[in-house]
Amino acid sequence: MKKEVPISKAYHLINTGCVLLITSAHEDKKNVMTLAWQTPVSVKPVLVGIAVSKSHFTTQLIKGSREFTINIPGAELLEKVKKCGMFSGREVDKFREANLTPVSGKNVKVPLIDECIGHIECKVVNEHITGDHVFFVGEVIAAYAREDLFISTSWAEDASLLHHLGGKTYYTNGKIYTT
Amino acid sequence: MKKEVPISKAYHLINTGCVLLITSAHEDKKNVMTLAWQTPVSVKPVLVGIAVSKSHFTTQLIKGSREFTINIPGAELLEKVKKCGMFSGREVDKFREANLTPVSGKNVKVPLIDECIGHIECKVVNEHITGDHVFFVGEVIAAYAREDLFISTSWAEDASLLHHLGGKTYYTNGKIYTT
Repeated sequence: MKKEVPISKAYHLINTGCVLLITSAHEDKKNVMTLAWQTPVSVKPVLVGIAVSKSHFTTQLIKGSREFTINIPGAELLEKVKKCGMFSGREVDKFREANLTPVSGKNVKVPLIDECIGHIECKVVNEHITGDHVFFVGEVIAAYAREDLFISTSWAEDASLLHHLGGKTYYTNGKIYTT
Repeated sequence: MKKEVPISKAYHLINTGCVLLITSAHEDKKNVMTLAWQTPVSVKPVLVGIAVSKSHFTTQLIKGSREFTINIPGAELLEKVKKCGMFSGREVDKFREANLTPVSGKNVKVPLIDECIGHIECKVVNEHITGDHVFFVGEVIAAYAREDLFISTSWAEDASLLHHLGGKTYYTNGKIYTT
């Protein structure tokens, strides 16, 4: 079961720098891409930023609809995460290719990915050219997560997030330290 | 021993979304802060972005000098990482408070932190207001890392990077997956 995460706490879903699946849609097209280049960028209002290559299909779709969603995959989705980083959505339907289930969002028209453990819906409030990428700044308008894995403001140890070391190599979360 | 990392590969130092220690300096002041809100934002040129609260001393110093450095702490520095997130550099010298050793950079006037396992020197090429933070975009002008821990384009398993779950809780890197 997934529960709503208060918008004020939503940045905790991605605060560790974990790998995301970004969905986008415009007119009759939709897409999903694997993305590691993300960060929260504001507490009040809650804003998050993602850097997407200028040439990517996702950039075209986000520029069209001014919306995107963040979906947080657990490590059990690693093969799907890999597939969504291999192809261009211009050529294949990556939802179908990776066998991911699109589900309706609450406040956006972009579909979310049912298999993921956390979700953030975003409206684009700004975009900045950063070299060969576009840095889209999204305001969080809804967020939810698996109630057994995201407790209060933090992922539980069992959540097994992914981090991208580069190329085909990832790691998941290890030992927890409380200072 | 630390070796130079080619600028084209430098974003791999922070690609996992790990926690950083950011140093800044202007006129006779210097500072260090703990920062989790970071991401690479371009491959050509190699640009990285950091989101710093508008009110932070670091923001004032970076605006003054247009430079900052990224220092990557291993998990063995956790207590120092915590200290550098607790105080304002306006009130205390955090290098002294956390017992961190400032060392000269190659192409910047800002001191780096000797105890860290990787370093990136940045010149600010742009800054964007993102809500209550400033998103500084830095061009990488030098990078180096512990030669036993950063191999070719990737951190080795022994590097033990830190990720911020929120509050006083962090995790380090766990199981590696190669797809």
